[in-house]
Amino acid sequence: MTKPLESFMAPQDLTLEETCELLELAKELKKDPIRRDLYGKTLAMIFFNQSLRTRMSFDIAMNQLGGHASILDIGAGTWDLEHRDDVVMDGSASEHIREAARVTSRYADAIALRAFPKYDTNWEENRRELIHNGFIREGTVPLINMESPLHHPCQGLADILTIHEKLGPPKQVPIVISWGWHMKPLPMAVTDSIFVEAAKHGMEVRLAHPEGWELDPEITATAETLASQAGGSVKVYNDLDEALPGARAVYFKSWGSLRNYGNPQKEMAEALAHREKWHLTMDHMRRTDKGIFMHCLPARRGVEVAAEVFEDPCNATTDEAENRLHVQKALLLKMLG
Amino acid sequence: MTKPLESFMAPQDLTLEETCELLELAKELKKDPIRRDLYGKTLAMIFFNQSLRTRMSFDIAMNQLGGHASILDIGAGTWDLEHRDDVVMDGSASEHIREAARVTSRYADAIALRAFPKYDTNWEENRRELIHNGFIREGTVPLINMESPLHHPCQGLADILTIHEKLGPPKQVPIVISWGWHMKPLPMAVTDSIFVEAAKHGMEVRLAHPEGWELDPEITATAETLASQAGGSVKVYNDLDEALPGARAVYFKSWGSLRNYGNPQKEMAEALAHREKWHLTMDHMRRTDKGIFMHCLPARRGVEVAAEVFEDPCNATTDEAENRLHVQKALLLKMLG
Amino acid sequence: MTKPLESFMAPQDLTLEETCELLELAKELKKDPIRRDLYGKTLAMIFFNQSLRTRMSFDIAMNQLGGHASILDIGAGTWDLEHRDDVVMDGSASEHIREAARVTSRYADAIALRAFPKYDTNWEENRRELIHNGFIREGTVPLINMESPLHHPCQGLADILTIHEKLGPPKQVPIVISWGWHMKPLPMAVTDSIFVEAAKHGMEVRLAHPEGWELDPEITATAETLASQAGGSVKVYNDLDEALPGARAVYFKSWGSLRNYGNPQKEMAEALAHREKWHLTMDHMRRTDKGIFMHCLPARRGVEVAAEVFEDPCNATTDEAENRLHVQKALLLKMLG
Repeated sequence: MTKPLESFMAPQDLTLEETCELLELAKELKKDPIRRDLYGKTLAMIFFNQSLRTRMSFDIAMNQLGGHASILDIGAGTWDLEHRDDVVMDGSASEHIREAARVTSRYADAIALRAFPKYDTNWEENRRELIHNGFIREGTVPLINMESPLHHPCQGLADILTIHEKLGPPKQVPIVISWGWHMKPLPMAVTDSIFVEAAKHGMEVRLAHPEGWELDPEITATAETLASQAGGSVKVYNDLDEALPGARAVYFKSWGSLRNYGNPQKEMAEALAHREKWHLTMDHMRRTDKGIFMHCLPARRGVEVAAEVFEDPCNATTDEAENRLHVQKALLLKMLG
Repeated sequence: MTKPLESFMAPQDLTLEETCELLELAKELKKDPIRRDLYGKTLAMIFFNQSLRTRMSFDIAMNQLGGHASILDIGAGTWDLEHRDDVVMDGSASEHIREAARVTSRYADAIALRAFPKYDTNWEENRRELIHNGFIREGTVPLINMESPLHHPCQGLADILTIHEKLGPPKQVPIVISWGWHMKPLPMAVTDSIFVEAAKHGMEVRLAHPEGWELDPEITATAETLASQAGGSVKVYNDLDEALPGARAVYFKSWGSLRNYGNPQKEMAEALAHREKWHLTMDHMRRTDKGIFMHCLPARRGVEVAAEVFEDPCNATTDEAENRLHVQKALLLKMLG
Repeated sequence: MTKPLESFMAPQDLTLEETCELLELAKELKKDPIRRDLYGKTLAMIFFNQSLRTRMSFDIAMNQLGGHASILDIGAGTWDLEHRDDVVMDGSASEHIREAARVTSRYADAIALRAFPKYDTNWEENRRELIHNGFIREGTVPLINMESPLHHPCQGLADILTIHEKLGPPKQVPIVISWGWHMKPLPMAVTDSIFVEAAKHGMEVRLAHPEGWELDPEITATAETLASQAGGSVKVYNDLDEALPGARAVYFKSWGSLRNYGNPQKEMAEALAHREKWHLTMDHMRRTDKGIFMHCLPARRGVEVAAEVFEDPCNATTDEAENRLHVQKALLLKMLG
């Protein structure tokens, strides 16, 4: 890094060079995992939403570097937090994120935050990422985004490291990033981040989804700009079958429709038409060029993706999950080391 | 300390000299925070109630001293505990605090306990602090009070350290400790502990609250005795405006009325008359002698205190919260080092 | 151990010699508890059910050995997990244990798992221990059983260490392992494990329960085989009074009836007849040969066992609980050291 790493909100916060530098460090840490660099350092982990990989990989990352993760579960170990300004706080929230951000900044050397809203709220509001931005503005230590409405940048780093390892240099390698059917609308952050990260690395990005499931325009614009800078490309397909031939990777992940955001009943009624066609099976994988199957997990077997795909050697999801640990350790060393 | 520190239940467990010695150590630790003294030592943290600052500051305190905090959330990670003796345990509680205290004493080097009852129970019962006293009696390691019905002594220590830092030696410095309106009755422990701590340090204590919100008589008697020993004073005001002129600090915090304890509907009906007058604004702060604003947090902005006060330079709450970490580390070193 | 210790599911996974070797190490660790052997090592602790002793003793065990425990609470910090294969995952579970086992194996050096089913399900299904066996099959690191439908082997180790300490060499020492009345059916794992462990050590095992509360036939067969190999014996009593004379220990613990498994109303109706007779008091203890009182805890005072027994010097339960820490540290050193 040319500069010390401040907050890490989105894949686009790091240039291609900075990202590659981080991935190199991650590979070193994968070989030689136990360090003492962060003795006495603390990462405050704040969860507004549940987690398995994120929780465990950051907790263990800090420990393997000699440091410590201190975990707060909002609504459980601690109370609800308010993020709106200028409201009389007579609702369920006992504390404002302004106080929480200021105080945790005094205790910890960095804050890691997961907060994404319920789908039944407003996208224009959610995409402003008020909780994350409130913590960044009021806090006085770096913030790591563990998933926000628009970004899941640590997942993006783990995914691109997995691509490096499995497929070699990603430049101009064809990847399908596809929507899948799910029985309820899911967040978009994971798709956004692999989309931007793949574009940044100059991959041949094939974004596949039914009409109506377009990503946020700002994400699409960012990906297109980064792709053209890196000698890659972005193309949208409304037919999964057309996107598959020659693909070396299929990133298959459901997300909610912006068109129907806040109206899950309407969305799921429309989505029903796509249920059969947008369910990943080995039939799809065989039409790729020995492509690997990627997914951030958790995944509902039999819903988004057939169980057979998880049991096939093409399944790269365990490696993606493992790489969360290594990229996050690299990130923590750059930030706190 | 002249003697090794046993359990720490209340501010009055430490003399003025012992308190000052602890604060000196806290200041040293604030400058030089990372130690290894408590390697292999464990603090068992047991929460009957939620927490943000307490949870995170003790967890990080132990880690920064080389030790470890092991956290139990009653009713979540572990089951409900019974504290009454001589009952047939056929209710919701699977285990008695006698067993819990004996067992955790075998695992940990000290126990930190937060337990305060629901407001809809009996004050004469609650003020006996049966859960804390049960742990002290049955346990075989020191206990740290992380808030009981009557005391929040670590908050008191953090507050008095903040006063030292912001205002210099506290002797005869005027402080207003005031009730504020809140939409439901809150615990008294924080107020009790800053009241006793301020009195112990010889401050000019102005306790302000509407008629009917008197503190527990034992606390008042303790504060008066300590104040006279230390060359300070205690005076009660039933009018906030009268208490403010010349004050260097305003500790503003709601608490429940003992008169109506167990009858929140009746209390809130009576409290409504005080809503407007006992809501802290910058108007109040400007009538002090450049006073600092103190509060233990969490605070509901717009309910107890106007948002503007939190955004003004007079706001000392973040420093109070930070000082939790430093005083607790001093306490842990004295207790376990 | 002749071989490095792989997964530890049941007392019968260790021979008598291996068990004694482990107990010797546990005694050494009890005298000299703080080590650094597991620096950088992680135990992933996964809880489908609540815990007090297990949670805290493993967490502290890892820390006292220089390592770290990373805790996942299923249904709280993380989401529900599915364990059935070949189901479309459109229920409450967001992730399959296959993924969870594979992923946590990449993060941690061993997995500790507590999962026992609700009593209102099917015993033939439950006894297959599908969650544990799924983690063993899909995971790639050793698994420690923190309680499954059939086994609680760490409790068994702690219990037998307590017997060694309190009563000397266990061979041919008479122990009563007795059912007790409880207002709802409880798991059998604890009884199963002390039963098998006591038999393995050649004790004179007196298994006492009303007709209808027989243990799983596989457990009984295992215990009988081990007892005869070790020069001990197993005898079943349907009358507690007959079992007590000469006993040096009474392990008193309720469990559910297999005959009525899945039908708690019917079971509790039948159990009512045994309520008075199968409630342990000092009267019973006085009929033993200065026997110690053993129980895994938690225990409902006044339900299974009279409060007086817990307050008598015969109570060994705190020592059993403490020994959880020491035997688990020995186990972790054998497994990860």
